[in-house]
Amino acid sequence: MSQLIFNNIPVFNNIRVVLCQTSHPGNIGSAARAMKTMGLQHLYLVKPQHFPDAHATALSTGAADVLENAIVSETLSEALTGCVLAIGMSARKRQISHELVNVREAALRASKIASTQPIALVFGTEMSGLSNAELDCCQLLAMIPANPEYSSLNLAAAVQVMCYEVRMAVLEGKLEATPSPELATNEALEGFYAHLEETLIQIGYLNPSAPKKLSERIRRIYARAQLEKEEVNLLRGILTLSLTPKKHTKY
Amino acid sequence: MSQLIFNNIPVFNNIRVVLCQTSHPGNIGSAARAMKTMGLQHLYLVKPQHFPDAHATALSTGAADVLENAIVSETLSEALTGCVLAIGMSARKRQISHELVNVREAALRASKIASTQPIALVFGTEMSGLSNAELDCCQLLAMIPANPEYSSLNLAAAVQVMCYEVRMAVLEGKLEATPSPELATNEALEGFYAHLEETLIQIGYLNPSAPKKLSERIRRIYARAQLEKEEVNLLRGILTLSLTPKKHTKY
Repeated sequence: MSQLIFNNIPVFNNIRVVLCQTSHPGNIGSAARAMKTMGLQHLYLVKPQHFPDAHATALSTGAADVLENAIVSETLSEALTGCVLAIGMSARKRQISHELVNVREAALRASKIASTQPIALVFGTEMSGLSNAELDCCQLLAMIPANPEYSSLNLAAAVQVMCYEVRMAVLEGKLEATPSPELATNEALEGFYAHLEETLIQIGYLNPSAPKKLSERIRRIYARAQLEKEEVNLLRGILTLSLTPKKHTKY
Repeated sequence: MSQLIFNNIPVFNNIRVVLCQTSHPGNIGSAARAMKTMGLQHLYLVKPQHFPDAHATALSTGAADVLENAIVSETLSEALTGCVLAIGMSARKRQISHELVNVREAALRASKIASTQPIALVFGTEMSGLSNAELDCCQLLAMIPANPEYSSLNLAAAVQVMCYEVRMAVLEGKLEATPSPELATNEALEGFYAHLEETLIQIGYLNPSAPKKLSERIRRIYARAQLEKEEVNLLRGILTLSLTPKKHTKY
């Protein structure tokens, strides 16, 4: 297997691993090592409890460079800047309508999109995984089909499995030649959601004092659609006109 | 996903994980945890440097039962008693004539044979892997196609990936479809599209004399979202209010 050529292709460079609110610095180090063994290098840390930390460095062994270049942020949304797909790792089934696939299928989709555009693999805390607010920043949920009687993978072990599947997807030549459409970035999506929410308040559909659940449901619809850049423009055009009907027309 | 039935089928019961001369007891505990998350329980330890050990138990978390039932032996050959296939994990290519496959292929073969007969997954030391004498006890070599510039997976991480592949091989094609949410019928979707189109005409976005292309683009967005029945109702509620803003509110 001529693997060397894959170290320089853009796909690995377009994939970031985002760890949210990690409690144990050792897990950050182990995750960095797991990433690097699979050829990934871009680590983002959202509000880590301790970082930098000697224990993280110790457990990263030969992947200290991944830690040194890690980007720390206050919010998940910030860590997703520029990404067109955020895949949230989920240890369990949730009562929500995010599309849920196993990590193999998720890795296939990730590697395909990452051949041209940035994507993120998002991991929650050791104890409770991703919060609902964090899930709302993701467009797809991925799960490792673990033993239902004991499904508690160590965080770094989950990172290892997911990164392994991404590497396998890339190496197995399953990348299609067809270019993906240009997907909307995280910022473009957030701009659309804010615009939509404001419009729904204006027309009296959304109660601004208790918008939470309805907003979430609507976000999930569009998350599943994985909106393209042009589609966001189209939808925002509709929103703009919906508040100024008949004053001017598009055509 | 009705995975429970797979916990009792013989295949997982016919697979043992053998760790040879492990240096760090923490790795034994982490490996036990990795095994159990994938439904495996039979751990064999060949000449472990420290076992039992408090650090191993701590890192096994909910998999202490795997450690308690671990079988310690003096030789690999002893640990392989009763097995018809021993798969040695190799981090690198070796100058030997063993058949070498990647872990996915190895897992497929393992799961097939293990459906009727015992097999072993054999891991060497953290520093140098399997010795030549240990390799001589194996019939097949498996490798994780790691980054050639940094291929050093943690021992427990390698166990996690191999056990994950075995689980995937066993589960593949056997998972029942997850119960989907109630999706919108074709009629419900057409009703929504007609409602949406009418609204877009009313607000002056859509030219009724040439609506074709825009309507198609919008339909494609919602088609990808695979709308649920309840979501169609939600979206139509928004459409209704958007033409009668401020006259009444939903909340």
